[in-house]
Amino acid sequence: MPWNTRFAQRTAAMQRSPIREILKLTAQPNVISFAGGLPAPEFFPQVQLKEAAETVLSERGREALQYSPTEGLLELRQFLVERYQRLGVPLTLDHLIITTGSQQGLDLLGRVLLEAGDGVVVENPTYLGMILAWRPYGIRFLAHLTDQDGLCVETLAPVLAQQPKILYSVPTFQNPSGVTLSLERRQALIDLLAAHQVPGVEDDAYGDLRYNGPRLPTLLELDAGRGNVVYLGTFSKTLAPGLRVGWMIAPPALLEKIIQTKQATDLHTSTLNQLMAYAAVKDGFWEGHIQRLQDQYRQRRDTMLSALERYFPSECTWASPDGGLFIMVHLPQQINSLELLAQAVRHEVAFIPGADFFLAGMGQNTMRLNFSNALPDHIEEGIQRLGLLIKQQLH
Amino acid sequence: MPWNTRFAQRTAAMQRSPIREILKLTAQPNVISFAGGLPAPEFFPQVQLKEAAETVLSERGREALQYSPTEGLLELRQFLVERYQRLGVPLTLDHLIITTGSQQGLDLLGRVLLEAGDGVVVENPTYLGMILAWRPYGIRFLAHLTDQDGLCVETLAPVLAQQPKILYSVPTFQNPSGVTLSLERRQALIDLLAAHQVPGVEDDAYGDLRYNGPRLPTLLELDAGRGNVVYLGTFSKTLAPGLRVGWMIAPPALLEKIIQTKQATDLHTSTLNQLMAYAAVKDGFWEGHIQRLQDQYRQRRDTMLSALERYFPSECTWASPDGGLFIMVHLPQQINSLELLAQAVRHEVAFIPGADFFLAGMGQNTMRLNFSNALPDHIEEGIQRLGLLIKQQLH
Repeated sequence: MPWNTRFAQRTAAMQRSPIREILKLTAQPNVISFAGGLPAPEFFPQVQLKEAAETVLSERGREALQYSPTEGLLELRQFLVERYQRLGVPLTLDHLIITTGSQQGLDLLGRVLLEAGDGVVVENPTYLGMILAWRPYGIRFLAHLTDQDGLCVETLAPVLAQQPKILYSVPTFQNPSGVTLSLERRQALIDLLAAHQVPGVEDDAYGDLRYNGPRLPTLLELDAGRGNVVYLGTFSKTLAPGLRVGWMIAPPALLEKIIQTKQATDLHTSTLNQLMAYAAVKDGFWEGHIQRLQDQYRQRRDTMLSALERYFPSECTWASPDGGLFIMVHLPQQINSLELLAQAVRHEVAFIPGADFFLAGMGQNTMRLNFSNALPDHIEEGIQRLGLLIKQQLH
Repeated sequence: MPWNTRFAQRTAAMQRSPIREILKLTAQPNVISFAGGLPAPEFFPQVQLKEAAETVLSERGREALQYSPTEGLLELRQFLVERYQRLGVPLTLDHLIITTGSQQGLDLLGRVLLEAGDGVVVENPTYLGMILAWRPYGIRFLAHLTDQDGLCVETLAPVLAQQPKILYSVPTFQNPSGVTLSLERRQALIDLLAAHQVPGVEDDAYGDLRYNGPRLPTLLELDAGRGNVVYLGTFSKTLAPGLRVGWMIAPPALLEKIIQTKQATDLHTSTLNQLMAYAAVKDGFWEGHIQRLQDQYRQRRDTMLSALERYFPSECTWASPDGGLFIMVHLPQQINSLELLAQAVRHEVAFIPGADFFLAGMGQNTMRLNFSNALPDHIEEGIQRLGLLIKQQLH
């Protein structure tokens, strides 16, 4: 066997993922795509980020283009620390580092915490990027029952009693289901994590994108400094994913090891991009921009929900998400959404079959629909096409 | 033991490295630092990169700020592929991906190729960032004898006969020694790699920074498409490290696995930074900029060499590097360079003790001096201070 096909055991389970292949599909201009998790490019703060680049490269160019500390730029870390302090989270600079997107946060956590055989409790369905990052460690995914209020915390105690290594959750506007963990369950979950000394990893990529209902406290806030929650945040959904800037909040002892690992991984996150993100958000622009995104994405969600009502057969079900980027549709059992996708692409409309997000072979009849990336007219048109295809399969 | 201090076995060997701690030290404005591997910020193409940012964010902002393919942007990959094709390397787009700096290239290679117990042949001394990235896999570093013409290839056959997993080399202007592998040895090495089917990883971070002597072909060029060399390149030394943009050239079968791994690691390298790098280099600016860097760094190297002649005691030895960023000085055996550093910092001058770059406990009496980052006057002053300290220790 030639040397360049002898790969380490840990990479055996790896394969090209739908995320990546479908990002390619969506690049074709004629396709109406509900597939990616892409923000709407027309709402990127292009002018502000261009000004940020100009200012940073004019005034601090030597710093912006040079190597910088692995843990991230002090000002940006300080800005983010203060944001969480205002929410009542007792944290200091030692609790927060900058990551190269929150995907790197997942990667680093896996590298530092996970060993073969470890149990990892997850929602079912769960986030595909986490599966990609953590599956290579030979862990056992413990898929826990999940309903319209998120993870069924009521039945979690015996699972946590077996001392899994991590509980991973996207509690707010989950990817792919759109579901949000209720306040009661959040409180119960935090108590369980503390009682069993199992850390919860809170992936909060979408939390700022709420379109209705009152804001719920994050797990990080409810943990109140007890140190049982690792929190992942990102500028990808509320500023721009192309910058690859996210952050991680964790107990300092863990973060120290994470920093050592990050150093070996990419030395540090782009200095320029950190300074640009900081320049764009530091003077209050960010909060206003988040509100504008909420207004725009709320419209798109509502357009998709009413199109689903109009064009999808009554055998289909879905929950209306209070925020985020996704609606998950449950099709009648006899419809395989992977086969539906093949047809859909011929009709120039795309989505992600849900099966990839589910563990234990479930979800063959589900589809994840992204409503943030397509224009409202295209949402209407695309859902109509999909509805027709589904009806054809049923009759 | 609390959960957040139970780390995976693979991270046990990790520790904060001198690179990182010394990057902090060099941030103090009064210290004359020969410690980091930092390019001179005053030569960053600040104007060109600012123009690149403006152009990219004005004309292609939606693309620059969006998610993009894991393997990197087509135009930038094509540009780099053509650069190597002009050197006679038979490669296609399938052989080259963009990485988040070449440190990520090292990280990804380690993840995909290395398993516990694998042998990895390295120069002695060798690059610290590689040690950081690969040590966690529990490999055996096979430190091979290295002299003023680089790796002693003459004695390498029995080592390669034992089927190490990788041979890692910085053949041109090595970090930390400054040494360059001779043409004869390059040719012999390529033949040996082919005969034993052991891949060579060529880390070519400094190859463009040649100050005298004729250009030597890279291992990649000499391999001539046989597929036994994995090549790592970067914009960090010839454009700006703050962008975190590098590249890897490898056989497609390996690169496919590397791409899968990169996706799980950071999804992709910053779209904006790739487009900025491409905009800056595509119209011929890069080659001229490299020449300007060569002229400036040649002066600094010569300033340091003549200061060493003047101020260091005759018991010290060093080789004059033909390029790159570093000179390695061998002090008399009785001087421990780590102890010298403690004194030096009190006199506001810094370097890196060589011992960290050596395997098998060697190099206690060596120091790595970087000549690219300090101004010529400061180089003169700093070497004078160091020379005084060394002379005091000797008498």
